[in-house]
Amino acid sequence: MDDASTPMVVLKDELRRFNEARGWGRFHTARDLAMAVSVEAGELLELFLWKPHDAVPDKERLGEEMADVLICLTNLARRVDLDLMEAVARKIEKNAEKYPVEKARGNAKKWDELAKEEG
Amino acid sequence: MDDASTPMVVLKDELRRFNEARGWGRFHTARDLAMAVSVEAGELLELFLWKPHDAVPDKERLGEEMADVLICLTNLARRVDLDLMEAVARKIEKNAEKYPVEKARGNAKKWDELAKEEG
Amino acid sequence: MDDASTPMVVLKDELRRFNEARGWGRFHTARDLAMAVSVEAGELLELFLWKPHDAVPDKERLGEEMADVLICLTNLARRVDLDLMEAVARKIEKNAEKYPVEKARGNAKKWDELAKEEG
Amino acid sequence: MDDASTPMVVLKDELRRFNEARGWGRFHTARDLAMAVSVEAGELLELFLWKPHDAVPDKERLGEEMADVLICLTNLARRVDLDLMEAVARKIEKNAEKYPVEKARGNAKKWDELAKEEG
Repeated sequence: MDDASTPMVVLKDELRRFNEARGWGRFHTARDLAMAVSVEAGELLELFLWKPHDAVPDKERLGEEMADVLICLTNLARRVDLDLMEAVARKIEKNAEKYPVEKARGNAKKWDELAKEEG
Repeated sequence: MDDASTPMVVLKDELRRFNEARGWGRFHTARDLAMAVSVEAGELLELFLWKPHDAVPDKERLGEEMADVLICLTNLARRVDLDLMEAVARKIEKNAEKYPVEKARGNAKKWDELAKEEG
Repeated sequence: MDDASTPMVVLKDELRRFNEARGWGRFHTARDLAMAVSVEAGELLELFLWKPHDAVPDKERLGEEMADVLICLTNLARRVDLDLMEAVARKIEKNAEKYPVEKARGNAKKWDELAKEEG
Repeated sequence: MDDASTPMVVLKDELRRFNEARGWGRFHTARDLAMAVSVEAGELLELFLWKPHDAVPDKERLGEEMADVLICLTNLARRVDLDLMEAVARKIEKNAEKYPVEKARGNAKKWDELAKEEG
């Protein structure tokens, strides 16, 4: 699997086989999977904790924690029968309306000025 | 975009264009993106809060919050130049060693018995 | 220290001494402490993960994770010079206006009916 | 209530009255309260998102989100009948053994050197 060629459905199938082989379906309520996304997001965040603000964690560890988030999210998508990429496409459209290019550019500029003053 | 046909790289490109058009690159430090994954995971979790334990939230709302998590995670992957699907494939292999099928099945069975006693 | 007799300021002082002795002040930016609250909240949540919905984790472990959340939160309060109990008092007042008794009672009743149908 | 004089038990009683008046006891399972701590921690973290790394959010907003975390944590302590300050005292003792002063000082020094190189 890689980002260049693998559609989400391949990961969904892989995870279905993995979980079925282990009898994990009963644990995987929608609520527990949403909790798991939060728990894994916390572990990802922990890699950045108490580090200099522009430090980037070891890429191997980073990849593992990011993978855990995506695995839980994809298991949740399977559980509630949701097409993740369709949901993302809709959300990007919605964000495009909420943050029109010109307005967003202006805010980014203001941020730069603020950061310059403070930094 | 949909799960059946869209590889992650298409989402990465879409998000690159979206962010570049808005000048958002400067906000998107690895640390802020990891924070954003946690923040969005919290919003996803909130949909389940104070609800009966087997309730499933409205699918439209669920899709939006899950999309936000995936968008932040993909932006982080772009920022640190990480192949998400490769990372997931490695993590699944590692999990397969950590949770061999026979041992995992046994634990799932114990859980069922526990849940029966309690429920 | 115990809940019956210890005011927050005693914990604040204890943590100040603890951190100063270790030279941890420089790590404790407001941002890192807010991140730490999230990370510790995730570890607390993890104790409930994949468990039957009405299971309560081991109280010793629960106490440790809850303590970690409170320690980080109190360190953040020290860092930004905030009186936590005053902030809580204000928030409770605000919540009392937002959720007037009669309306809140009605919603709780609806929840019971919903839970009965589903359970 | 303020940090100088209010012991935790006063907040516990205040929250008990608040919740009983609204019939909220049934929502407040240990699991939902642990979820609520995570959700509120996410809202606290959001105040720092996309801001310059040394920016401190508006203190009123900060106080509100920190209060929400403490309210949920205290409700959880009540629900599982836990003495928060006793748990914190035990955790501080444990941390003191885990991070002895001399070793912790050394690590903080290394961090400073790292930050200087990077910054």
